[in-house]
Order: sequence, then structure tokens, then C-alpha cells
Amino acid sequence: MNSFGRIFRINIFGESHGPEVGVTIDGCPPGILLSGEDFETDLMRRKSGAKGTTPRKESDIPMLINGVYQGRTTGAPLTILFENSDARSDDYSGFTDIPRPGHADFTATKKYSGFNDPRGGGHFSGRITIGLVAAGVIAKKIIAPVEVKAGLTEVGGEKEIEHAVRSAIDDKDSIGGIIECKVEQMPVGFGEPFFDSLESLISHMIFSIPAIRGIEFGAGFGSAGMRGSEHNDSFISADGRTETNNAGGINGGISNGNPLVFRVAVKPASSISKKQRTMNMATGEMVVLEIEGRHDACIALRVPVIVEAATAIVLADLLFLTSNQSRKNRNL
Amino acid sequence: MNSFGRIFRINIFGESHGPEVGVTIDGCPPGILLSGEDFETDLMRRKSGAKGTTPRKESDIPMLINGVYQGRTTGAPLTILFENSDARSDDYSGFTDIPRPGHADFTATKKYSGFNDPRGGGHFSGRITIGLVAAGVIAKKIIAPVEVKAGLTEVGGEKEIEHAVRSAIDDKDSIGGIIECKVEQMPVGFGEPFFDSLESLISHMIFSIPAIRGIEFGAGFGSAGMRGSEHNDSFISADGRTETNNAGGINGGISNGNPLVFRVAVKPASSISKKQRTMNMATGEMVVLEIEGRHDACIALRVPVIVEAATAIVLADLLFLTSNQSRKNRNL
Amino acid sequence: MNSFGRIFRINIFGESHGPEVGVTIDGCPPGILLSGEDFETDLMRRKSGAKGTTPRKESDIPMLINGVYQGRTTGAPLTILFENSDARSDDYSGFTDIPRPGHADFTATKKYSGFNDPRGGGHFSGRITIGLVAAGVIAKKIIAPVEVKAGLTEVGGEKEIEHAVRSAIDDKDSIGGIIECKVEQMPVGFGEPFFDSLESLISHMIFSIPAIRGIEFGAGFGSAGMRGSEHNDSFISADGRTETNNAGGINGGISNGNPLVFRVAVKPASSISKKQRTMNMATGEMVVLEIEGRHDACIALRVPVIVEAATAIVLADLLFLTSNQSRKNRNL
Amino acid sequence: MNSFGRIFRINIFGESHGPEVGVTIDGCPPGILLSGEDFETDLMRRKSGAKGTTPRKESDIPMLINGVYQGRTTGAPLTILFENSDARSDDYSGFTDIPRPGHADFTATKKYSGFNDPRGGGHFSGRITIGLVAAGVIAKKIIAPVEVKAGLTEVGGEKEIEHAVRSAIDDKDSIGGIIECKVEQMPVGFGEPFFDSLESLISHMIFSIPAIRGIEFGAGFGSAGMRGSEHNDSFISADGRTETNNAGGINGGISNGNPLVFRVAVKPASSISKKQRTMNMATGEMVVLEIEGRHDACIALRVPVIVEAATAIVLADLLFLTSNQSRKNRNL
Repeated sequence: MNSFGRIFRINIFGESHGPEVGVTIDGCPPGILLSGEDFETDLMRRKSGAKGTTPRKESDIPMLINGVYQGRTTGAPLTILFENSDARSDDYSGFTDIPRPGHADFTATKKYSGFNDPRGGGHFSGRITIGLVAAGVIAKKIIAPVEVKAGLTEVGGEKEIEHAVRSAIDDKDSIGGIIECKVEQMPVGFGEPFFDSLESLISHMIFSIPAIRGIEFGAGFGSAGMRGSEHNDSFISADGRTETNNAGGINGGISNGNPLVFRVAVKPASSISKKQRTMNMATGEMVVLEIEGRHDACIALRVPVIVEAATAIVLADLLFLTSNQSRKNRNL
Repeated sequence: MNSFGRIFRINIFGESHGPEVGVTIDGCPPGILLSGEDFETDLMRRKSGAKGTTPRKESDIPMLINGVYQGRTTGAPLTILFENSDARSDDYSGFTDIPRPGHADFTATKKYSGFNDPRGGGHFSGRITIGLVAAGVIAKKIIAPVEVKAGLTEVGGEKEIEHAVRSAIDDKDSIGGIIECKVEQMPVGFGEPFFDSLESLISHMIFSIPAIRGIEFGAGFGSAGMRGSEHNDSFISADGRTETNNAGGINGGISNGNPLVFRVAVKPASSISKKQRTMNMATGEMVVLEIEGRHDACIALRVPVIVEAATAIVLADLLFLTSNQSRKNRNL
Repeated sequence: MNSFGRIFRINIFGESHGPEVGVTIDGCPPGILLSGEDFETDLMRRKSGAKGTTPRKESDIPMLINGVYQGRTTGAPLTILFENSDARSDDYSGFTDIPRPGHADFTATKKYSGFNDPRGGGHFSGRITIGLVAAGVIAKKIIAPVEVKAGLTEVGGEKEIEHAVRSAIDDKDSIGGIIECKVEQMPVGFGEPFFDSLESLISHMIFSIPAIRGIEFGAGFGSAGMRGSEHNDSFISADGRTETNNAGGINGGISNGNPLVFRVAVKPASSISKKQRTMNMATGEMVVLEIEGRHDACIALRVPVIVEAATAIVLADLLFLTSNQSRKNRNL
Repeated sequence: MNSFGRIFRINIFGESHGPEVGVTIDGCPPGILLSGEDFETDLMRRKSGAKGTTPRKESDIPMLINGVYQGRTTGAPLTILFENSDARSDDYSGFTDIPRPGHADFTATKKYSGFNDPRGGGHFSGRITIGLVAAGVIAKKIIAPVEVKAGLTEVGGEKEIEHAVRSAIDDKDSIGGIIECKVEQMPVGFGEPFFDSLESLISHMIFSIPAIRGIEFGAGFGSAGMRGSEHNDSFISADGRTETNNAGGINGGISNGNPLVFRVAVKPASSISKKQRTMNMATGEMVVLEIEGRHDACIALRVPVIVEAATAIVLADLLFLTSNQSRKNRNL
């Protein structure tokens, strides 16, 4: 399904080379001030054009076709469309027979019996994440003053990000990276034991973003090498503040009021200009593939704002579920 | 919510020191041969008693109270109960005021306004994972010949597992570990782009298991330091086999027929016999806590079978969703 | 699926002749005072033994095996079991080949490939509604002071209920009835336009009760013969009170603060002692069937308390969803 | 939520006087031939302009902006938009203070704290049902050869439909009606006991259509006055055919292979040109309201195609859920 959320639910749709891509938000509360300008900063952060990212040019102007009236959300479904103006379909074609390594060409062809739109990856394109970012803008308004911030901490194993990216570009190659996300002003009580643990919901959403290969909370993989006496976070204030934050702000699946902290690993983009070997599925012969066109040398550069959006969307949904929980308790 | 799955849905319930814990499976197909013996091996693997795990003794005999008739599943909801015979409530109490570091005492008290059952962690107890393991036994039957295998690869940063555990026990401390899970005979086509990506569903489920701090697929966090030319997996056969498996068997959120591979980080158990500092929330004073009772020195020893169960449950649900998908295609 | 609800979700399970039937409530708020006595009145109303209902004797003592601690709900899943002590399996058997008219014997056999438990209707038995009634008891506490009342208005087309029932018993036959349900103290704002309209949710739940054949809100089927000028309810107070209540308390899918009013049609019980014709599916021959055993002459007598429970469960879920909605609005 | 369905899920959005209304279908199988022409017949049946329906003129040309490639569905989300070209916003306004009897003006204002779009009923408008009809066109293709047919059987209590409508128009009034829906070629096995009974799912969906006041299956409300010996349908063939069809094709919540038959009651349209009394909520005074503009004298004329669409959507979802069920059984 292309939807996420129980109360604040987003639905994304569109293809890389269709006329429009977009998102419908269901369960958005009424009365939120909203204009096109609200989206500018985050859309710009996600946008193509920066060094190391694809030179595809899109105006990325949000069209709010329903759910907003007189500048405020109405409580009805809210749909935002974005035009695909710079789609060059001739750049991509024929990957049904000769699947690109690392891409969804092979799996999409199999799963959809060859009926999937192959142009620019179709519905599998990173272009679709624009809907996530747009929904994230609204989610951030809802959860304020809770604040989500994500940033690149390293690229290709180096902390010198610009240098690493330039080096990959020079080699006609691509490069991965690590993003750290931190949420300040987290309330206590978001998440549940087991299936709706805060880690479960956030990881579910984060792995919706193409190119993510791993996620870890707090001390993460490092915790596997720690002793309990070292890993346990001592409580040092009555509101739940802890001396260390190895738990990443979560105990028993529930936020404990400390900053929520997690890191994600972004793989290097699959599209590279370098020659690669793959198989021609129609003939069964190995072939050498050289992919023309526009490529991101480092997609990780564009992912932090998507991680922020994804996180804010999860937290907005939890805000409503949890307000509700508190309300339930109060009713008695 | 304490349920997971769209077609094959499990519901877990119970508390550490209540009379019984259990699971109800909804959407289980009819006709599966099922007896109490089928559960023995996996329940034994999860069971307490091994060196480095808590000496709590439970008989762990599954009571199939509905959904089975004449030795086969009926297609109706299937409930399995387990008695809690060895619950010693005096071991645990008073953690509402003095929350144990690393435990859910603080968050549960806040979230449920102090009405949660605190005995042995109540519904937050690892005891509840017995329902997951039981459901996993059935899920494994359903997905056969797809085979899920998980095992510990290191403990406390060492590959010498037994030695590391003994050392932690001697220090009255606990220790974490890394588990690798591999699924052989994976069909092509499980999972979807974005929100229902195979990584999303598996990570959602895996983080339902208490004590998990991270998950990575294929090359995982290592991919962040790789070049695309190095990370991309070349297709070498018409059924989708790839030369390397840095993608962990997934492209575009969908299984590509190669082994599904992921690793999870398990934190050291929060309960240790060593003295720890925490706050008395009632008085606002820092106190030194010494937790008596039975503790797991290395819970990671018991987690592989739970990871297998969790994975099999996700795959069983996807099997039905995907059979369906194929069926949809065939209908046209 | 055997679950209903988005926030306050119930899961029912069990078979007529299994050891126990029950319900698990997920999303129950913590802190509700709850004891076995709370269930007595409603369980008694549903119970067998009254004139015109089956003489099957069950003690119907609720066992609260989890989710309650020190007499209050904990916020964790709450499971209630009921023993099946008076199941006589020899009364029912062999209906796989010779399906009883009006029963689920034929459809269950086909759907579950013959693996369904046929004893007493198995999971299709009206016995399973005891879980609904138990969940309804809790739901009623949650929605108070909103009050749900349902009662029989006619049986077999007659207002003289006792006489109609006696007449059916004398004829070894069964008889249907009409139930009216009225909810007083309804808040404004429950329900949504379209798919989650109050009518949609209530009808979904009501048709979960076996033997229901129709539902109508307010003027119901009568409205089809009315003019708009006659049917429209004039507002006569600022809190939304209307002069008439042809809308049954709902405008645009949302409660308007007037009493919610609906009626349901209950068919005559399918099990009758009279001889009936049906087909032997194994031989293809028409046969005459005479069903021995205990039958309800008028199941409609037992349905009002189930209708109340079903309605209260829907309203409890909406209370949380709607509190939430209000909260959302207030946040801005 | 504005979505319906577990596998074949539709999401509707838009407002009466916004630029566009539409629907996104998630879970649509790939490979279905689809063009704009496929929608013509059903959109025309729903369209305004017929005698007794509002003279609002809309071109109703479906824009398939994603999910279709080279004339076939792709398996990705499929969005269909319709322009609102003939929205006259001056016709409707000021109903926030003076709610129209029978409309959602009062409830929408309360629920959404006054932020809802009031123009033409906003998201509550019958205009939004165009998305249902469009999704129904695709659903009908999916379920073929299963065939859904709905038609008006009476209007305003009369069988002389044209005469009854003309009479209502002459009186500046509106009039209700009864629609019967029949599904031929129904497979055995759609639906489940209890919450996902076929009646539950269909009634849930049918009450999503504005102006529906009641639904009854098979003998419906008439069954309440029947004896069991009269109501029970005798099986007369090995494929489940019955002599009578008082059950409307459903036993135990599951289709039995006989035609699925139900009737729905449509209330008279709330908008009438006749003077009506209502309250000015701002001043607390009773006022006389005379609603100018375009009205449907008999909305029931336009509802049969919506009932067909709604039914086909439910059956398409069940087809996938049930194929799946069969597949599950076959796997063993």
C-alpha cells in the first residue's frame, strides 16, 4: 500500500515521467495556516541541482488542489500536486530486458508482469519522495515545538563531505553516506510496547525512503559491544532526563523525553556513468551497460530533509494517537 | 496496537506475572497439521535456563484453545496460551517510584498514568515474546520451503561467545550481541515500493522485539562508505541471481530472489546485579539501586529464534499478499 | 478478520464446542474500575434459558486473564475468557455433507475446504457473541454518560411478543423480530463524511451479529416515500436540537447531538425442529432433515443486549478518534 | 478516513467548488486495459441534467494522471481527476450561521471548528461520489464476469417513477426512492463470519453514499415477520443453489453462490426550493430559509450507478482477499 499512518495518513502517487506526482493527506487537522511559501525551504533542500546531485530541473511548485480554504486546512483530505516538467523519457528505456544493477527494474518487471511504467523508474523513482517532503512540512507544523533535525555526518566514509563528493564525480561514480537525525522537545509517551514501538514506526517509515540500508537508535550497533552497566542510562531528573542517551530517547518502545536520536545509512546511488556488467534477460547473455543521462553522485545529500519529513509524519500521527491516550486517561 | 499483519495477523497479550500469556492468530489458513510437539524446538531455543540466561523455569506448554480441530488449523482465529507458573512477584516491585535504568518503568508509568501492571515489567516483559515464537512456528510451516535462519555472530564485540558471556556473568553484568538472519529460497516479488517495502515491514517487526537497537540489510552501514560501482550487484542469471549481495536480496523494496540478509544489534540486558544510580521520582533524590533476582547476562542468546519467528510472520503475511498479487495479474 | 476498531479494537475468538471462547480488547484506556460483577447484568440478558431461547446452560463467568491489575484496567490488552461447559457435540455433526438451510454449513465447508470445526457451528456460532457483550460492558463504561438502549419492538410481525413466541414454540418453528436502538446524550461530531460515516461504522458492526437482515436509521425505509419538506429536520436550538428526527441524529455522516436512532431486522433462527428439505451434497439427492437438539424459537429475544454492545463499541472507538479530533483543533 | 478497502483501496478527495475532485486507487492490479471511454457510460448515468436532477453542467472527463501506461494499469497507484468547471460559489454561502435542514452545515461547522469549506457543501458534496463511480468502473472490470446491476424500483412510494418526480418538481419539493441491487455470477466464499461479513462490508460502503437511510438483504425487514420454516432457503443443487433466496445470497456472512440481493432506501434531497424553518445559530432566532439555486428533485435517480460502483469496489477487494484464501488452502 502507498499509505502510512493511522490518524494522520499520507498517500503518495505518481511516476517519474507522468504529468504530475503528489500526495494526499487524510486526517489533517483543520485550521492550520498553509500557503505555497511554507514548502519552499524544504523543497529546495530536497531539490536537484546541487553539486553531486542530478541536474534535472524542476520548478517544484506545490499545487494545493483540495483541503485548503481561505489559507487554512479544512480537515478534509488535502492533495498537493507537483508538475513533472523536465522529464526526458529518452534517457531511460529498455531496462525491462537489461535490468540496471541496484535498481528496481528486475523486481518491478517481475512483480507487475511487465506492465509497470519503466520511464525513469516509474513509481519507484526518488521523484515520488517530493510528496513525503510536502507532507513533512505540514507534519512539522503540527508537532511544533517538537523539532526534527537531520544532517549528513559523513559521505563515503569521510567527514570531508565536499571532497568525497567531488572525488566520486570525477570517477563517474557514486557514493553513500550517514545521516543523523535528532528530535528535540520530545514528549514522554510516544509509542507502545511491541508492534507500535517508536523504533518500529520510525524504521518502517525511514525504510520507505529509497536507498536506505540501515538504521540504529541511540548507541545502535555499538550497544552490541557494551556492558549493561555502561549502556544503561541513569535517570537524573524527575521529568525523565538521563545522564547518557544510549537508548536514543526510547524505553520499552516509548519516548522517555530525552532527545530521540537515530542514524541511517544511505547506499551509493545505483545510477552511475561507469560501465557495469549485467544480464540481458531476454537473451541470457552478460552485457556491459553504460548508463547515459543525469545522475546523483551522492543522493545522501538530498536525503536529510526526507528523513526529517518521514520522522515528522510519524510523530504527527503519534501526537494524535497519544493525545488521545492522555484524553482516555483523563476521562476516567 | 498489539497486532501485526494485514492477512496473517497476530495479536499478543498477557503480562509477566499474570496467569497466562498468549497469542491469537487471525487469518491463518485452514488445513495445516499442528500439534503441541511442533512448538517444542523453537520454544526450547527461546527458553530460559541456558548459561547466561535467567534461571526462571517455565514449562512453556502451548495450549491451543481454539482454531484447531482434529489436528489441523480450521481457518478461524487460533489462540495459544502459556501458563506463567514460575512468576515470583516479590522479586519485582516498587519500580514505579524508582525506575530501573534501561527499563520501561518510567515510560510505562507516565503513559498509563500509573495503572500499568509493574510486576516483572508487566506487559513490557520479554515473556510476551513467547507468543511471537509460537506464531512463528506456524508461519514457518506456511512459508516452507522458504527457510529463515538466524544466529549470533558476536557477543560483547567478541566472536568467542561462551567466553564473553562467562566474563559478563562473573562481573554481575550483562552483554549485548549481533544476530545475523538469512532467508534462503526467497521468492521474487515480496514487498512494495515505499511504505510496504520489505525492509520497512521487517524492520517494523524486528524492532517489536525488546532490546533491539539497530538493523541493517545487505552491506548495511558499510554501504555508506562504498562507491556505487562497488555496491551494485550485477545480475548473473535470468532468475535474478546476483554476483554479490550488497542489497541483501532487495531492490526497490521488493525481494529479488537472492537470499534476504540482515543483521540486528541487541543491547545488553537492562537488568544487572551490579549497583546502578537512578532517581527516586517521588523524592527527587538520586539513589543507588541493586536489583536482586534472576537476570539474563546475555539476552542476545535467546533472541535468534525470536528474530526467525518475527521474520517468518512478516513473510507469511507477504506470501498471501503476493500470491494475491500474482493472482490479480493472472486474472486479466 | 475477527477484529473491529481503530483505537479501541476488539478481537473475538473461539468455537461453540471448544474449551473456551473470548475476546481481547486492545487500546482499552487504563484506570477503569472493572470486576466480574460488572458483566453480570448484560451477560444474563444475553444468556440462554429464557422462554423461547435455547435451554443450553452456561455459567458465563468472565475470566479476566490479562489487562487488569488491582481491579483496574492497565492499558495493556485485556483478554476475557468464558468456559464452554455445556457443549454437547453429539447434537451436531454430519452437516458437512447435508448442510442445514439458513446455516453457514455450506459456505464454511466451501470457504475453509472442509477443515472448519463443524461442532455447533464452530466459529460461526452465536456463542461467540458473548465476547461482544463482554467488550460492550467496558465500552459502555467508557462512553458514559452516553447511554445506549435497545429493545424488541415486535416479534413475528406482532407487538404481543410473548404470545408470538409461544405460538412459534408450539409449532416447532422459529420467529424473527425488530429491535430499536436509541442512544441518548450523543455528542455532536462522531463520524465522518463518506467511508467512516456514523451509519457506515454502526451498520458494519451490527451486521457482524448473526441473523441480522436489515438496518435503517431515523425515518429509514419510510424516508423513501417522503417529500424533502416533510423529511428535513428543522433546527430549533443552538446546540443542534431538531424538531423532528427523521435523520436519526446524523447529518452528513456525523452525529448532530440528537438521539441516534436505528432499527434492525432479525431473521427467524435457522435451527428449527420442523422437518426441512435440503440436499445431500455427497450424493446429490434431496433429503428431509429433522434437526434434533436445543433451539432458540426467537433469537431476537437475546439480540438487544448484543446490539447495545455493538453500538457502544463503535461509539467508544469514535470517542477516542473524536476527542483526538477536538484536540487536534485545539492545538492550533 | 477517506479510504476504503484492504487490498483494492480507494481514496477520495476534493470539494464541490475546488478546482478538481478525484480518487486514487491503491492496489489496482497491473495490466488492465483502460481508457477514458471506459468511464463514459457510468459517468453519464451519474451525471446531472436528467429531469429531476440538478441542472449543474460538468463535462466529467476523467484525467488519468498516474497508474496507467500505454493504455494499461501499471500496478502503481492510479489517480483520476475531474475538473469542477461549473461551480457557482455565489449560490451557496452563509450556511455556517444558518444551517440548512438535512444538510451537514451544522455538523461540519462543529466538527471542523468552522474551518471546513462551505461552498456547495465542500467535501460533503455529492460531487465527490464521481470518484466512487470512476473507481467502480475499474472494479467492475476486475470482478467480471460477476455482474452488478442496480435500479430504482420506486420513487416517493410510487412505482410510476416519472410521474412521481414530475409531481415533486411541480411542488418545488424533493422525493426519495428505493433501489434494488442484484449481483449475478457471485462466487461462493466472499466474506467472513462476524466483522468482515459480506453484509458488514457492503453496508459500510453503501452508507458512505450520501442520502442513504437503510439497507436490507434478501427478505430484509420482511424476515422479521416470517417463520424459520418459511424463511430458510432449501439447497437444491450441489453448487449451493437454493429454492428461495430469503438470505439474499449470504449464509454466515459468506456468499453462497446465489445472487446477492439487497435494497437501499434513499431519502429525499435536503435541498428544496420550498421555504423551510431553521435557526440562525449566531442570533438564536428561528428563521425562514428559501434556498435558491439548482436542486435535485430526486437524487435517487442518480444513485443506482453509485450503488453499483460501491458494490463492485467491495467485491473487487474481496476477490483479492478470497483468491488469496483459496491460494492459502491450495498451498497445503
